[in-house]
Amino acid sequence: MTVTLSSPYTLTALGEFGLISRIASRVAPHESVITGIGDDAAVTALTPGMRLLTSTDMLLENVHFRRAWHHPHTLGRKSLAVSISDIAAMGGIPRWALLSVAIPSDLPLDFIDDFMRGFLELASEYNVTLIGGDTCSSRSGVTISVTIMGEQSPDLIVCRSGARPDDDIWVTGTLGDAALGLTLVEGFNSSQPPDRCRSLSGVEGVDFLLSRLLNPTPRVSVALALAEAGVATAMIDVSDGIRADFGHIAELSGVGGTLLIADLPLSDMFRSLTADLPVIPYYHAISGGEDYEICFTADYSDREKIADCAKKCGIAATRIGIVTKFSGVKVLNRDGTPFTARTEGFNHFT
Amino acid sequence: MTVTLSSPYTLTALGEFGLISRIASRVAPHESVITGIGDDAAVTALTPGMRLLTSTDMLLENVHFRRAWHHPHTLGRKSLAVSISDIAAMGGIPRWALLSVAIPSDLPLDFIDDFMRGFLELASEYNVTLIGGDTCSSRSGVTISVTIMGEQSPDLIVCRSGARPDDDIWVTGTLGDAALGLTLVEGFNSSQPPDRCRSLSGVEGVDFLLSRLLNPTPRVSVALALAEAGVATAMIDVSDGIRADFGHIAELSGVGGTLLIADLPLSDMFRSLTADLPVIPYYHAISGGEDYEICFTADYSDREKIADCAKKCGIAATRIGIVTKFSGVKVLNRDGTPFTARTEGFNHFT
Repeated sequence: MTVTLSSPYTLTALGEFGLISRIASRVAPHESVITGIGDDAAVTALTPGMRLLTSTDMLLENVHFRRAWHHPHTLGRKSLAVSISDIAAMGGIPRWALLSVAIPSDLPLDFIDDFMRGFLELASEYNVTLIGGDTCSSRSGVTISVTIMGEQSPDLIVCRSGARPDDDIWVTGTLGDAALGLTLVEGFNSSQPPDRCRSLSGVEGVDFLLSRLLNPTPRVSVALALAEAGVATAMIDVSDGIRADFGHIAELSGVGGTLLIADLPLSDMFRSLTADLPVIPYYHAISGGEDYEICFTADYSDREKIADCAKKCGIAATRIGIVTKFSGVKVLNRDGTPFTARTEGFNHFT
Repeated sequence: MTVTLSSPYTLTALGEFGLISRIASRVAPHESVITGIGDDAAVTALTPGMRLLTSTDMLLENVHFRRAWHHPHTLGRKSLAVSISDIAAMGGIPRWALLSVAIPSDLPLDFIDDFMRGFLELASEYNVTLIGGDTCSSRSGVTISVTIMGEQSPDLIVCRSGARPDDDIWVTGTLGDAALGLTLVEGFNSSQPPDRCRSLSGVEGVDFLLSRLLNPTPRVSVALALAEAGVATAMIDVSDGIRADFGHIAELSGVGGTLLIADLPLSDMFRSLTADLPVIPYYHAISGGEDYEICFTADYSDREKIADCAKKCGIAATRIGIVTKFSGVKVLNRDGTPFTARTEGFNHFT
């Protein structure tokens, strides 16, 4: 199974099984993996007493990503990052991944190599082992499907359904960066980029926003610390916008909530890049997706413990609202009036 | 989450979360599933002492299936069946599935409903619970990705790597039916169907072949019986053709093998439909994919036990060759000469 990595192979010359061998040769073994890539199914050993956590995400070219925006290396990282984020959001420990890719036959092998380098690099950073997958030819762009498995003790798993009235609503990191980055990248790639976007191309901070969009960081350590501290009553990752994602917590917990616009954590880059606009574009923070921060709820008596968890993990945690008895999620301005800009999150098909 | 099933909803009106609720409302709960569809990740409990088995398959429109051939109900069944077959091939017990679907926004909701009816029907037949997935909009046809999880005791799991020289090579059921069915269906759908295919349209047995192609049966019970009897030294499901798939066993076991053309089990329908051809089209049986039978190897002293397993499960098991010390897979005619028709299996990209 030794494969020369810098070979002049094309995908067609390599074939399906050559490609699988090429990928398998780069995967580091792990003690929890009894049988990895290459059999009908992977065989793994869950830590005794742990529950299995499983999630899956599909990424389609020109729906979730564009090859013009995404270097294949960051695309590989992001493909796994968004799945690891789901395990984090349960308070879980990510363990194993399956990767399926549908590839046009004329895709340069370099693209696949760079993609896999990014995927396996992130996997290594989070101690995740690639244990299997599927490869097939596509007649219509690249499609990626990642399944992630993790584990956690039953008493530490945090679901969306545990929020209680009067709990604080928290979020890690900052919101709206990825959405503002998307606005920029859409501007850059349009045949007629808006002046504002063009003028930003050399501005400090643009790289930060693009990195937040294209190379997100799953918040595993802080989510795990919150779970282990027993402070999070409900948890979710912010992929569709904080209003929509807190809305999922509210719905499954049978509660509602009030989010305070003025309390939403904005990055310095977000603030400086939008400083000369007539109003702060909060809708990026409230309804912009793909920040992959962690939104959670907790009793007010746990504020100090939460601050400790966040500090220990080197990330901010900010209170952004309050859980209410009544269903529905309100977003309020500083003066208590409703925030009226669009607040719906991303929704496929609509 | 109550959804009226016969509603006049379109996919666009329903939206992503409406669709997820619609699917979730049809999934029966299972004691092993602590948290199913609707959270960031599913939470399940593996039976203590068991290993986790995981496999994933991607199915693309116009690569793996055509909407013109596949009623969505059988497509739903097949999407899960091919994955369950992978768990069977390890001697495993299938447990949980994840389903991701990329759907064009204009796809009739009836298609999705029929697809899910088939998927969940087969899931129920094999005691598999749908625990999560992903739904997204597609700009280029339907894409389906299924991840299956199963479990088994470490000592009963059968890998591809255990075949030993002089082991018998066995296969369940019959070979070539799906490939012959594909030839027929390709003929039917061509604008100029070959005379032979056209003449078959009313012939008895065509439905059988099409059912083998479009609605395959994963061989869970016989594979499990073989694993529990401890007789299979290596096992694989036949998805790419018996020569290619036994080739995977041979490669991972560090052995070779001889397959005897005259011993390949052919169905009565296969024989009768090809009876008036100048030669029996054995290449369908040797290199045709998608039969989803189980190929396994076993010591010659276990022939009686194997016959008992097969009989108990109501399926044939046929000896089709011998494992050899020397690498490479030979296919021989009755007179010992090499079988010369094409014998390679299906391979994406080449």
